[in-house]
Amino acid sequence: MFAVEVRDHIMIAHSFAGSLFGPAQALHGATFVVDAAFLARSLDANGVVIDIGRAHEALKAILAPLNYRNLDEVEAFAGINTTTEFLTGYIHEKLSEVARADGLGRPGAEIDRIRVTLSESHVARAWYEGPIGAESGGGK
Amino acid sequence: MFAVEVRDHIMIAHSFAGSLFGPAQALHGATFVVDAAFLARSLDANGVVIDIGRAHEALKAILAPLNYRNLDEVEAFAGINTTTEFLTGYIHEKLSEVARADGLGRPGAEIDRIRVTLSESHVARAWYEGPIGAESGGGK
Amino acid sequence: MFAVEVRDHIMIAHSFAGSLFGPAQALHGATFVVDAAFLARSLDANGVVIDIGRAHEALKAILAPLNYRNLDEVEAFAGINTTTEFLTGYIHEKLSEVARADGLGRPGAEIDRIRVTLSESHVARAWYEGPIGAESGGGK
Amino acid sequence: MFAVEVRDHIMIAHSFAGSLFGPAQALHGATFVVDAAFLARSLDANGVVIDIGRAHEALKAILAPLNYRNLDEVEAFAGINTTTEFLTGYIHEKLSEVARADGLGRPGAEIDRIRVTLSESHVARAWYEGPIGAESGGGK
Amino acid sequence: MFAVEVRDHIMIAHSFAGSLFGPAQALHGATFVVDAAFLARSLDANGVVIDIGRAHEALKAILAPLNYRNLDEVEAFAGINTTTEFLTGYIHEKLSEVARADGLGRPGAEIDRIRVTLSESHVARAWYEGPIGAESGGGK
Amino acid sequence: MFAVEVRDHIMIAHSFAGSLFGPAQALHGATFVVDAAFLARSLDANGVVIDIGRAHEALKAILAPLNYRNLDEVEAFAGINTTTEFLTGYIHEKLSEVARADGLGRPGAEIDRIRVTLSESHVARAWYEGPIGAESGGGK
Repeated sequence: MFAVEVRDHIMIAHSFAGSLFGPAQALHGATFVVDAAFLARSLDANGVVIDIGRAHEALKAILAPLNYRNLDEVEAFAGINTTTEFLTGYIHEKLSEVARADGLGRPGAEIDRIRVTLSESHVARAWYEGPIGAESGGGK
Repeated sequence: MFAVEVRDHIMIAHSFAGSLFGPAQALHGATFVVDAAFLARSLDANGVVIDIGRAHEALKAILAPLNYRNLDEVEAFAGINTTTEFLTGYIHEKLSEVARADGLGRPGAEIDRIRVTLSESHVARAWYEGPIGAESGGGK
Repeated sequence: MFAVEVRDHIMIAHSFAGSLFGPAQALHGATFVVDAAFLARSLDANGVVIDIGRAHEALKAILAPLNYRNLDEVEAFAGINTTTEFLTGYIHEKLSEVARADGLGRPGAEIDRIRVTLSESHVARAWYEGPIGAESGGGK
Repeated sequence: MFAVEVRDHIMIAHSFAGSLFGPAQALHGATFVVDAAFLARSLDANGVVIDIGRAHEALKAILAPLNYRNLDEVEAFAGINTTTEFLTGYIHEKLSEVARADGLGRPGAEIDRIRVTLSESHVARAWYEGPIGAESGGGK
Repeated sequence: MFAVEVRDHIMIAHSFAGSLFGPAQALHGATFVVDAAFLARSLDANGVVIDIGRAHEALKAILAPLNYRNLDEVEAFAGINTTTEFLTGYIHEKLSEVARADGLGRPGAEIDRIRVTLSESHVARAWYEGPIGAESGGGK
Repeated sequence: MFAVEVRDHIMIAHSFAGSLFGPAQALHGATFVVDAAFLARSLDANGVVIDIGRAHEALKAILAPLNYRNLDEVEAFAGINTTTEFLTGYIHEKLSEVARADGLGRPGAEIDRIRVTLSESHVARAWYEGPIGAESGGGK
């Protein structure tokens, strides 16, 4: 399996509901360094998984509406704990939508899986890896 | 598959038996930067794989008896080469025991796998990834 | 000049006043990975600049009141843009106070300077370096 | 599954054919930081996947003919876009040949898979992971 | 002294003249990860050294004419070994010109020094640090 | 000021005398990732501070007698706490000796200073920076 992975980041505020989260129940924030990996069984005629520039653009477009936001006020996340893990699934689902619509410069059917990793500090990170099919449920 | 990963470290002395190891047969030492990743097929009701604070504590508790030790003198390791690879399996088994005993704040049955990575320098690392079942044999 | 440097981190929310900041005028957040370096012209009788454990504790104590907070609501920061640069100066001043009070396990007079670095992402960071004297003005 | 991974690097020039590549169609270059991971289901009698020194040597031997070269002039790559992804597959195939010939200090049959990762910058990397069998086709 | 530092990168080809360079006399290439640090004695009214977005733009504008190029064919570098060290000085001089022309969103007289670091691999880097005055000579 | 910096590492065992060190009084160990930076006011005729290959070799030669050793048994360190800080000074002095003897491929008088950084983990490091003169006293 081949993969190509690109990196970007967002800086967001949010709070969590649930005693499990202790002090993180208060409004706080995070820089999430986001790595998006695209996996395919073979390279295309150009010798790439997908164009790396296109990968950067696709990721940036999905992150833009989240960047410099208080996620507690983002309508799509109403009633949801926007944990690092949840966001990996959410970004996976958004990237999968682009892939399924052939929006990555290569037929979606040739993209096997996507893995999204969010590093929240030098000592903690989370990821979601799964196929790009509608049934993947990464963001659910 | 979702994953959450936390980082800690230990500073140990040890020596190796076997000509394969060359100069590392002598008593020397290492800083092992340890990453423990917990993998699950779905998030819990809080939206996490397991609580990240709990993950840090579980890892720290397992590393504490090894930290600042000469591993050649640790009874559990008598007659064993405490290679980087061996230690990944050992820490995996210890974390799996905690997971199976529901000690990670989530039923062990909901934890699919654990991956333990030890970086011994900027140019070498090792990992063990496997299920948490008693038969996993990571530390054997 | 000798130096010893330790690392910790905080996760905070804040907003900025001023059109310069563009989208960062909105409430957002950041993970700041904080490196605190202590510089001295010579080592003490133990062969250290200051004890590394003590350095970790001093930094953690100063970061604790900021961690998991919305800095817009921290009284000490009223009317202030809590930029990455400002926070480097603020933490420098707090660490300097500890040093001047001989709170680092070594006479403050033997600590020459302190440098505080905050990394806000993989592509941006800031630092403040200065002497620990009351006149240093790092946090002003 | 156990794994051991070692790191080295090469500094090469090359150009790409195809409008997809935009400005990268011109002759340019890259530092590729190369991580080679060897995966095995069990440790050998010494307690290792393979000797880490042997792993470093095997990787260095394969990289040497590429280092400080213009890949456009390497005969084996005539007519090929030497993309980051292609090179992961090529190095995988070369390492697999060594493994199959028992050249890693352990019977090739005990090496399950190899993963080769090339980081081309702080924001982009690629990898190929596959079995070491002749049919793996990593470099094709 | 306060500082703010931003990161970008270029991917270039070049060759060196002089037996000192051994195999690097051949046409090869490099990814240079470039860190540009701006140092000032005090923060401005907004609480920053300079706007971080502006810093990113200034660096990108200077790197653009070099990116995806064979530096042997860049007129400004005719007869020059474009070593990592040389390039740190060159980029320093270009950033200093922008600073002196008040192009960083703050009077150049308030910028004390600039430091430019180029990492060419995980094991080697170079930097140039100096004042922004016309006499600094970083690129000479 | 120009600088070029190279990286290597050692894996050693040692123990410390003094209650300050707590559990680190026991025999333990460390991987020290070592960065050696050479600073000069100007580049030489080749356009370098010193040849980067020569820098790597000089550092490796100094680290070799320490690598895979129990520093408690190294004669030169008898009665000395081989702290991270101490070792930065020791390696600085050894590199300075080479520089003063014109052993870096450039007259020692043209090397202004050397900085040696030892990273002992992802959260702690130390460095020593000073001139290369016999009176520098880095290793004393």
